[in-house]
Amino acid sequence: MTAHSLWERFQNYYLRYEDLGFSIDISRMRFADDFFPSMQGKAEKAFADMKALEAGAIANPDENRMVGHYWLRAPELAPTAELRSEIETTKKDVLDFAAAVHAGSITAPGGKRFTEVLVVGIGGSALGPQFISDALGTTGDKMAIHFLDNTDPDGFDRTFDTLNDKLAATLVVVISKSGGTKETRNGMVETAAAFAARGLDFSKHAVAVTGPGSELDNVAVTGGWLKRFPMWDWVGGRTSVMSAVGLVPMALQGLDVDGFLAGAAAMDVKTRSTEVSQNAAMLLALMWFYAGNGRGQKDMVLLPYKDRLVLFSKYLQQLVMESLGKELDLDGNVVNQGIAVYGNKGSTDQHAYVQQLRDGVNNFFVTFVEVRKSRDGESMAVEPGASSGDYLQGFLRGTRTALYEGGRDSITISIPEVNAFQIGVLIALYERAVGFYASLVNINAYHQPGVEAGKKAASAVLTLQGKVRAALTAAPLTVAQIATAVGADPEAVYHVLNHLAANNRNIKHAGGKSLAEEQFSVVA
Amino acid sequence: MTAHSLWERFQNYYLRYEDLGFSIDISRMRFADDFFPSMQGKAEKAFADMKALEAGAIANPDENRMVGHYWLRAPELAPTAELRSEIETTKKDVLDFAAAVHAGSITAPGGKRFTEVLVVGIGGSALGPQFISDALGTTGDKMAIHFLDNTDPDGFDRTFDTLNDKLAATLVVVISKSGGTKETRNGMVETAAAFAARGLDFSKHAVAVTGPGSELDNVAVTGGWLKRFPMWDWVGGRTSVMSAVGLVPMALQGLDVDGFLAGAAAMDVKTRSTEVSQNAAMLLALMWFYAGNGRGQKDMVLLPYKDRLVLFSKYLQQLVMESLGKELDLDGNVVNQGIAVYGNKGSTDQHAYVQQLRDGVNNFFVTFVEVRKSRDGESMAVEPGASSGDYLQGFLRGTRTALYEGGRDSITISIPEVNAFQIGVLIALYERAVGFYASLVNINAYHQPGVEAGKKAASAVLTLQGKVRAALTAAPLTVAQIATAVGADPEAVYHVLNHLAANNRNIKHAGGKSLAEEQFSVVA
Repeated sequence: MTAHSLWERFQNYYLRYEDLGFSIDISRMRFADDFFPSMQGKAEKAFADMKALEAGAIANPDENRMVGHYWLRAPELAPTAELRSEIETTKKDVLDFAAAVHAGSITAPGGKRFTEVLVVGIGGSALGPQFISDALGTTGDKMAIHFLDNTDPDGFDRTFDTLNDKLAATLVVVISKSGGTKETRNGMVETAAAFAARGLDFSKHAVAVTGPGSELDNVAVTGGWLKRFPMWDWVGGRTSVMSAVGLVPMALQGLDVDGFLAGAAAMDVKTRSTEVSQNAAMLLALMWFYAGNGRGQKDMVLLPYKDRLVLFSKYLQQLVMESLGKELDLDGNVVNQGIAVYGNKGSTDQHAYVQQLRDGVNNFFVTFVEVRKSRDGESMAVEPGASSGDYLQGFLRGTRTALYEGGRDSITISIPEVNAFQIGVLIALYERAVGFYASLVNINAYHQPGVEAGKKAASAVLTLQGKVRAALTAAPLTVAQIATAVGADPEAVYHVLNHLAANNRNIKHAGGKSLAEEQFSVVA
Repeated sequence: MTAHSLWERFQNYYLRYEDLGFSIDISRMRFADDFFPSMQGKAEKAFADMKALEAGAIANPDENRMVGHYWLRAPELAPTAELRSEIETTKKDVLDFAAAVHAGSITAPGGKRFTEVLVVGIGGSALGPQFISDALGTTGDKMAIHFLDNTDPDGFDRTFDTLNDKLAATLVVVISKSGGTKETRNGMVETAAAFAARGLDFSKHAVAVTGPGSELDNVAVTGGWLKRFPMWDWVGGRTSVMSAVGLVPMALQGLDVDGFLAGAAAMDVKTRSTEVSQNAAMLLALMWFYAGNGRGQKDMVLLPYKDRLVLFSKYLQQLVMESLGKELDLDGNVVNQGIAVYGNKGSTDQHAYVQQLRDGVNNFFVTFVEVRKSRDGESMAVEPGASSGDYLQGFLRGTRTALYEGGRDSITISIPEVNAFQIGVLIALYERAVGFYASLVNINAYHQPGVEAGKKAASAVLTLQGKVRAALTAAPLTVAQIATAVGADPEAVYHVLNHLAANNRNIKHAGGKSLAEEQFSVVA
């Protein structure tokens, strides 16, 4: 296209919400003029699905659940007065609790002020708090925040080493919707042990965010923990950042909870429009559909040009891929849907993989995120007439142009600055785009059956480990002998044996010329 | 396949280097028995190319350069005595400098000990040091390390806020091979200003790592900086972590430089074998070729099950994508090669996008990285008979099995523990695999023409910004009027105007019903 017709196209496909300072530009996606008319029917279906979802329909049929994350920032829309009240009460409770901690009316035993927050959670119970705390944190935060988001023993030790003397001033927030997630349980158990090793009473430092009546909830009740906040079955982990899951860490850190919710609510209002051209979330979903032919044939590369947004792609990786990566459609057909998401930040990534984006395999589309404000206060000139922020902008625009000229498509989203309100805006935009896209391709965006399968497979490995350990003797045995003894696949047995030998001083591994000759034994 | 034949296949395609504690398992990639024979010719060509490269051939023909990163850990292999001496002298110089800083014989003005390192660099001058410092750092490090790796003004401010009072005890290491990278130049200029604002003499805190005679080198000489270390044109940025680029930060942090180089050297020795089945780097390259049909049709997902390896995928994203993402092959044909790389860590990612890997679009292969040792010291039981590390292992093995059963391929790499030696092992493995793969698909892995194009496009935006600013008047003008005045594309002008209005209090933006009616002006 000529520059002139690109300017025309830009004006046609540039949507602004002036009151939010938000814009989205889809002009550099090469869809044809008939694309939007051809998608009108599907878009209308998606609008209708979303309307039903927001009104309390069972939008997650496999789990027979409502999907209510939009109510978290607009409780008046909840389908019952009870739900509305639960949302409002919980939010007030979170803010009151954080205020009491900050004021020193809730303290560690002995009256020691809490200065640190340790969040123990994984996936939907960690990625939201991590993104928010990194995007909005400053050296002036009310409390410093730390995370345990895995079951890596060395990772636990590293965090305990960092906290060290500050453990006595640490408030631990254990987050698990189901209350039975093993990584989180392990992190909790090891944290409690670390407290005990220093003569501290863990339960007087501990807060639970979990489903009422869950395994974790019972632990918290029995142990007399400081506080419990509820999770609800109508909020999925990956959309839980505006429930207590996200708000407790955010409030403790001293960030703007009300602004965050208001930003999301404001974007929700805009994206309830059923006029496609005015609905940023629908434009986004349609662009994903266009880019990948509704089959995820192109990866989504996220390039926010702002250090504070570096975790946005990790957050969206979960939101998009866990929601859209599904084997079956709603009619039971095998469809293997999904969109791969990756990215870090610009212009940093231009010095890494953007070489491939420009010249290499064209299996992606880029989403640029522009933040209009460079910094608080004035900028110095790093050379005559140019600031560091001018360069950042130059790299964004230059890269968008270079990619387009090389036949690579991109979307550009702009926000005025990084603050709690705008983070709410971005999250709400993507939550709804994901919901719309799921309707466009006819899948359930709100369950995660594959995650359960992985957990079961892991559980089988642990059961096998117990059997293998019991089958070991002082006399060395081969892998085949042990596999026969426990009635299991020799390869699985071999991996268990290697793991045991590497981590237990009393289990010995003797090499052989081949795997078949290797032997394992127990030393008394 | 049955469990029995999988055990056979595992034994056939499981390669161990017992002296390194390293293994690679390619048995869960579904190549047919004739795959290796069919690739033998290409593999031999790749071995020959690599041999020539290591002997000092011009392996980067576009830039007419040798490719010498393998000499950095085996200086005796450098093609001339001069190069050998330069490598050895530089390493000694790095270690001596760090020792002097640690001993307090090199200090900040007034004798203040340096306790912090601030690395200013981007891409190849940041990702290596970031990966290493995160993988190997402990609370017992000799110095704490910080990074400026972008041209984001807010990102600069945030780091300066964090350093704050410690700026007086901060040693700044500015790293730029060419010495002209704008992000790094901007970071350096703003850092110098931050020092000046606190009455500190930046030059007495500054160290340069750059090509002798570069723009940065001249600044360092003129300014009388503390120290300069060389970069060489025969080391590419993305393979520079074993030159002064990586070694200076590593040595200052107090990490094991000799172990790191020894690990890489040891893997190099193994992967110089021209027997395909015994060469882990060639097996890796062939698996990439198999997975993506030699055209990058599958994404490479990296899943290290260890918190300390979370940045490995970011490091490999650059190494693999910048090396392999090329438009032309060595004969000038348009091939648009590359392999997309993403990933974070397990089992964390199992609670995020692994849902899509298992059930969704099958456009990837996974590389699991297993670390056999769970932690220093003994583990507690988190439930009867199981530790946190047993769970981590269970999730890795369970996920590998679940993916395989769902028709998804994977490679598993195992190392005994995360230490400097093993990080050297991993980096050397991937460096050589990338080199081999480039030969298999006949491309130059050692240049980055697309990066240059992005820089040029950005420079054009900055030039335009100067013109647009000069064209603004006290009388409001439309975008079209300004575009005509400066003779430029109205869309590009519009973006520049928006950026200027957002960051300069004296530039006004008046909205209109349409973009065509908007007006911009300068306030005196």
